[in-house]
Amino acid sequence: MRIAVDVMGGDHAPDEIIQGCQDAIESFDDIQLTLVGDKARIPSQLTKDERISVIHTEEKIESEDEPVRAVRRKKQSSMVLAVQEVKEKRADAAISAGNTGALMTAGLLHIGRLKGIERPALAPMLPSLESQGFLLLDVGANMDAKPSHLVQYAVMGSKYMQYVRGVQSPSVGLLNVGTEAGKGSELTKEVYDQLQSAPVSFVGNVEARDLLSGAADVVVCDGFSGNLVLKSIEGTALSLFSLLKQELTSSMKNKLAAGVLKPSFKAVKEQMDYSEYGGAGLFGLKAPVIKAHGSSDARAVVSAIRQARTMVLERVVETIAEEVSKMNDEKE
Amino acid sequence: MRIAVDVMGGDHAPDEIIQGCQDAIESFDDIQLTLVGDKARIPSQLTKDERISVIHTEEKIESEDEPVRAVRRKKQSSMVLAVQEVKEKRADAAISAGNTGALMTAGLLHIGRLKGIERPALAPMLPSLESQGFLLLDVGANMDAKPSHLVQYAVMGSKYMQYVRGVQSPSVGLLNVGTEAGKGSELTKEVYDQLQSAPVSFVGNVEARDLLSGAADVVVCDGFSGNLVLKSIEGTALSLFSLLKQELTSSMKNKLAAGVLKPSFKAVKEQMDYSEYGGAGLFGLKAPVIKAHGSSDARAVVSAIRQARTMVLERVVETIAEEVSKMNDEKE
Repeated sequence: MRIAVDVMGGDHAPDEIIQGCQDAIESFDDIQLTLVGDKARIPSQLTKDERISVIHTEEKIESEDEPVRAVRRKKQSSMVLAVQEVKEKRADAAISAGNTGALMTAGLLHIGRLKGIERPALAPMLPSLESQGFLLLDVGANMDAKPSHLVQYAVMGSKYMQYVRGVQSPSVGLLNVGTEAGKGSELTKEVYDQLQSAPVSFVGNVEARDLLSGAADVVVCDGFSGNLVLKSIEGTALSLFSLLKQELTSSMKNKLAAGVLKPSFKAVKEQMDYSEYGGAGLFGLKAPVIKAHGSSDARAVVSAIRQARTMVLERVVETIAEEVSKMNDEKE
Repeated sequence: MRIAVDVMGGDHAPDEIIQGCQDAIESFDDIQLTLVGDKARIPSQLTKDERISVIHTEEKIESEDEPVRAVRRKKQSSMVLAVQEVKEKRADAAISAGNTGALMTAGLLHIGRLKGIERPALAPMLPSLESQGFLLLDVGANMDAKPSHLVQYAVMGSKYMQYVRGVQSPSVGLLNVGTEAGKGSELTKEVYDQLQSAPVSFVGNVEARDLLSGAADVVVCDGFSGNLVLKSIEGTALSLFSLLKQELTSSMKNKLAAGVLKPSFKAVKEQMDYSEYGGAGLFGLKAPVIKAHGSSDARAVVSAIRQARTMVLERVVETIAEEVSKMNDEKE
């Protein structure tokens, strides 16, 4: 299997992305990588590795670029070229830590939507206290979602958790403002009934407060809500850590005590850490595309490659396609 | 001025609520309180205080009651009777730590909406790192909001921050998934332009990630989104504290070091603490109604009473009414 990696996207590109590629090649015997980016930045021992190909380009999409325009105009950008490797079947999956909207646009334009999926979803794994984490979708691919979109998210998320994360019969929750049925917006009220008859283990509404304690394995919502929740969790964790740091370094006595606790703080931070959990999947495309976190280091890149590899090995996209087609047949 | 307090609502009712009333009577010379609830639970030195009246009732609305039905059927409940004191002009403001939906329903039914306000909003103050906190509205009174509702929230929030919190020309942000104009859902795209011409200091979109670092003094959104953000912040803070606690008590060495840092942890917790910031206002009613947090202790009740008192003293409701009427006149 071959995975195309945009080595120019992300805050720590290209060095950390390239390092992640090198680590992944050492970790997984069964992968080949296509590194897309500035060849001058790629160490020569990598370009000589027979499992690594390089596509040289100096053009890149910036994080502040307007997605649709950037994908249309920057045809030689590392991201577009990486996605095109998948389109042309020269690679089985693509990864980028760059502009999320642009990656979604490139995926839609060049790889295309799976039949039966109306809208793709951006789906990150988030940490949780009691369990191995949960999948939240959508977090921003599709702002004004319809009920049928959320049902498709539920199916895609369930298959992913089952085949990639090994969760048998993953529980699916509907993100809502209360746990009782009949709560929420017009969208959530309407989708509730549809989820009850969908081929997933629907456990009802889940509140934002309970997400991190592991309310469900898969949580579905419209992209606007998912984005708010994702960024609220991130922002609160960052604020709390910065507040703690400020307090813990405010005196010599504090600094000494904090020194003893350093491994504990590190453990907590790691449990909340994205890079452990891999990137966000762009579900609903005809091939696996993974959006690694913008702040990805080498370790996060390895996680994203592992994730793409498992999706290919477990035929997740094909399984989703079969399930959705079955569902649509039953409806007709 | 007289404030009616439902002493039967909230997780720590009635004792903490009653204690808060007693503390408030001692702190503020210019208030009188009407305590509504089970007289048997109110200490006799309070019932004898000439600034305190008691309305006895044993009926109460439970937190799991369906709001509309509860307000209609439980006519003798402490919450409904407290709100009715305001309706009958025997009190200037009402406070409850009970069922939020029921309080909103009772407020709408018995006190009524301000002219020109289409939908009331539930508006809590939230902590922020750099500033004195920010007002978020709406967090759940109105799930499917229209652009005009958010403009009215902006006006109400601004007047509140100005007169009650002493912020000159409070900045108003629109909760959104990105900071650029044109981002977000159909609702946020439409309301963006309207906020630019509203009589408030609109600073554009604010992301959920930046709320706690003080992105704006007033943040407006639909009730569904606001509720998700509020509960995400709460849930993340609680999860992190519980994770930290677990780590810091995992060994004797850790326990000792954590003991030294206890005041620091307490300081951080306090900065994130709701009770310091008072309750959530039910804005858009004809009189101040404050929803104290369900987990309110005596200190939170004092904060809520202080808040209601300032709203009455500063004529916040009247000022909002004038501003909204001016705005509607200009539109015609």
